[in-house]
Amino acid sequence: MVNYPHRIVRKTVPTVTKKTAVNFANRGMSFETAINATNDFYLSRKIAVIHKKPTPVQIVKVDYPKRSRAKIVEAYFRQASTTDYSGVYKGHYIDFEAKETKQKTAMPMKNFHAHQIEHMANVLEQGGICFVLLHFSTLKETYLLQACDLIHFYQKDQGSKSMPLNYIKKKGFLIETTAFPQVPYLDVIEKKLLGGKQ
Amino acid sequence: MVNYPHRIVRKTVPTVTKKTAVNFANRGMSFETAINATNDFYLSRKIAVIHKKPTPVQIVKVDYPKRSRAKIVEAYFRQASTTDYSGVYKGHYIDFEAKETKQKTAMPMKNFHAHQIEHMANVLEQGGICFVLLHFSTLKETYLLQACDLIHFYQKDQGSKSMPLNYIKKKGFLIETTAFPQVPYLDVIEKKLLGGKQ
Repeated sequence: MVNYPHRIVRKTVPTVTKKTAVNFANRGMSFETAINATNDFYLSRKIAVIHKKPTPVQIVKVDYPKRSRAKIVEAYFRQASTTDYSGVYKGHYIDFEAKETKQKTAMPMKNFHAHQIEHMANVLEQGGICFVLLHFSTLKETYLLQACDLIHFYQKDQGSKSMPLNYIKKKGFLIETTAFPQVPYLDVIEKKLLGGKQ
Repeated sequence: MVNYPHRIVRKTVPTVTKKTAVNFANRGMSFETAINATNDFYLSRKIAVIHKKPTPVQIVKVDYPKRSRAKIVEAYFRQASTTDYSGVYKGHYIDFEAKETKQKTAMPMKNFHAHQIEHMANVLEQGGICFVLLHFSTLKETYLLQACDLIHFYQKDQGSKSMPLNYIKKKGFLIETTAFPQVPYLDVIEKKLLGGKQ
């Protein structure tokens, strides 16, 4: 068992999200870890079924060594054409993206790609619940901003390199981060979005 | 532009799904290609937003060469813990898996993993619409079987290595494959499942 590749992976890969390991090269990882833990909590309590999609990879070359499993020896990261998270909550389709910044007054817009904005618009048109979770790590504040408000800003201010925190505070909802689950975003969905609809 | 890795990929990777290229090593690919084309059709007509999830890959080692993009040089295929396809149709969460066989009388059960069955049960519990698309390539017949019927068979007949076509015909719905879209599975969802609910 010791030589199994997945054992090696757990020690070396930056995409492994263990709660104890937070010193990742990827800046967004600790927030991502908190979201994944929240989703695990929702799943285990049968509150919702929401998963992070696998990282999109273009596979170029695969070796098939004897007596061991297939090894990918050449591959490249692809840009995601959809959002990172999706799932179901009380029959509703849930779809969201998570972004983190160290800035104190604005969220950089460069991480929202045109494909993702288009995907969010498509999801809204089908009646899905779509939003972004925005984490300001220096301020230790997390906001839920509905996709319609993100799209509105994106379309209106395409020249802007960042979305002001004031806009996010005005249009979005602060998520009270707790110990367990860490990022209880479904509380906002339930109280602010579904509560208003039902 | 010619030397970009993604150009190489389009020529060599089995996971690229172009309608014209059907001679794939992966047996399930031509059926998968048809489903992807169907989802493209649904997306372009604004009928539904349903995507195939990226192949889950465990990344072990990444090179960062100067002047070119990051290259993954060691990675392994992971077993999927959820189903392959998910999305939203008229606000409903859609979740399914697709399987193909050359057999004429039964669908092998070995390709349905315990994790996937559990995921399907979780989705149903949250009120999602969950099913499998089963393609019998020799018969040229495709069926939609609801997840509840797959789970029922799986739990009752765990010793069985395959699910009889008779069971699928009795519990499932034949999908009339057409030229465009190729696998109109949402017709069944609309007429047989939602039609009964609404």
